[in-house]
Amino acid sequence: MNPIGIVGGMGPHAGLDLTRKVFEETRAAGDREHLPVALLSYPGTIPDRSAYVLGRSDENPAAAIFEVVRALDRLGATVAGMPCNTAHAPPIFDEVRARMDAAGLKLRLVHMVEEVGRHLAERGRPYRRLALLATRGTYAAGTYRTLLEPRGFTVLVPDEEGRARVHAAIYDETYGIKACSEPVSERAVRELRDVVAALRDQGAEAVVVGCTELPLALGGDEVDGLPLVDPTRILARALIREAAPEKLRPLAAVATPDG
Amino acid sequence: MNPIGIVGGMGPHAGLDLTRKVFEETRAAGDREHLPVALLSYPGTIPDRSAYVLGRSDENPAAAIFEVVRALDRLGATVAGMPCNTAHAPPIFDEVRARMDAAGLKLRLVHMVEEVGRHLAERGRPYRRLALLATRGTYAAGTYRTLLEPRGFTVLVPDEEGRARVHAAIYDETYGIKACSEPVSERAVRELRDVVAALRDQGAEAVVVGCTELPLALGGDEVDGLPLVDPTRILARALIREAAPEKLRPLAAVATPDG
Repeated sequence: MNPIGIVGGMGPHAGLDLTRKVFEETRAAGDREHLPVALLSYPGTIPDRSAYVLGRSDENPAAAIFEVVRALDRLGATVAGMPCNTAHAPPIFDEVRARMDAAGLKLRLVHMVEEVGRHLAERGRPYRRLALLATRGTYAAGTYRTLLEPRGFTVLVPDEEGRARVHAAIYDETYGIKACSEPVSERAVRELRDVVAALRDQGAEAVVVGCTELPLALGGDEVDGLPLVDPTRILARALIREAAPEKLRPLAAVATPDG
Repeated sequence: MNPIGIVGGMGPHAGLDLTRKVFEETRAAGDREHLPVALLSYPGTIPDRSAYVLGRSDENPAAAIFEVVRALDRLGATVAGMPCNTAHAPPIFDEVRARMDAAGLKLRLVHMVEEVGRHLAERGRPYRRLALLATRGTYAAGTYRTLLEPRGFTVLVPDEEGRARVHAAIYDETYGIKACSEPVSERAVRELRDVVAALRDQGAEAVVVGCTELPLALGGDEVDGLPLVDPTRILARALIREAAPEKLRPLAAVATPDG
């Protein structure tokens, strides 16, 4: 048994969301045709990713993430993904990979942000100017700019006030998505929409939902007329492609800015 | 790390649904306060449960289920649940427990149907006449009658035609929930509602959603005015109670047939 491995817990609902998207993107006529999946959701052991990237904590979450990856490897997983954009910042992701190499793990950890670039490039770059909604950690690490701009994309980042609003929509203890997701608060949705509107005025053609909590607030395929690019769904498809490419559902036609 | 174990894959969406309900029923102010959960969704290895209970197959799914339980035990899980009512039929469940005993596993497998009886009894038996919607395998095994009637409940089962309609709403290859869940077909919902209406006429006070696929078709808290009893949510709460009772959310006030 070689399940698709999912490093969950960052946060718990993001792990569920990726698992669901793996099922949705699998070509299966009935239960038994679905692929094996192992989701390990161990939130209590993994320190906050943004706090480390921003230098507010010395504790690199890579050590705890590596332990989950090793448990997935022992379960027989040969490919795994982690639905947390901030954990793909180089100071964290590179350290996880270094520990995997040192331990000689055969499991391959798919890089969600690299897959976003690959996906958009393979689809013929339907949008080139991408608004990025993300945590302060992901903005500060420049993960999307570093990986997408060499592929011909422009990553539009909100100004300082906008970045603070997106971060608060995720983390604020009274109205943020992590504290309050059933349902998501109206304020979190409003703040995100305001930031998107400002980036649209700067020429954004699509919105990258660059934090795995955000799909809880921004459902559907678009926000204020701009198509959403969902890295979690792209990661789900990449995991299926690596584990069992014949099981990957065909893509629907791409939505373009012109409709 | 001692995660709550979930034997998934029967079907894949039922495993996700239980995982989500564990998160929802956990008292947690933020991500890191959530409990560790390991979901192993290995649908391809587990034979159909109804076919075995009905004598249409000689292959007891217990062997494959036991392998998943053993993998959860190796991950450190001390308690686990399986969101599949039919797998709780004695010919399957008892064989899983026998294999666990023979292997000397310490992990405790919570029995979902026993927990339904315990839950309703502890709540003061708000309803005594329960309509059961389930697969043919669960009806034939009499799992709910055997476990709930000694606790003072009456389990109302549809007539032969009604049982066939419920089974088809789950299994039919054109309109059943397993074949067609995004969205669930109108026909599956209509068939289930018709069966519930007939059982209400026989005095049912609540509906036990006795197949983990059914919440996909019957959302919300009631169907045609009868409150729903959701064994998956009751199992989620039992798993938290066994793993970390201080983390269990208080129950909402019970809905009664009189409102």
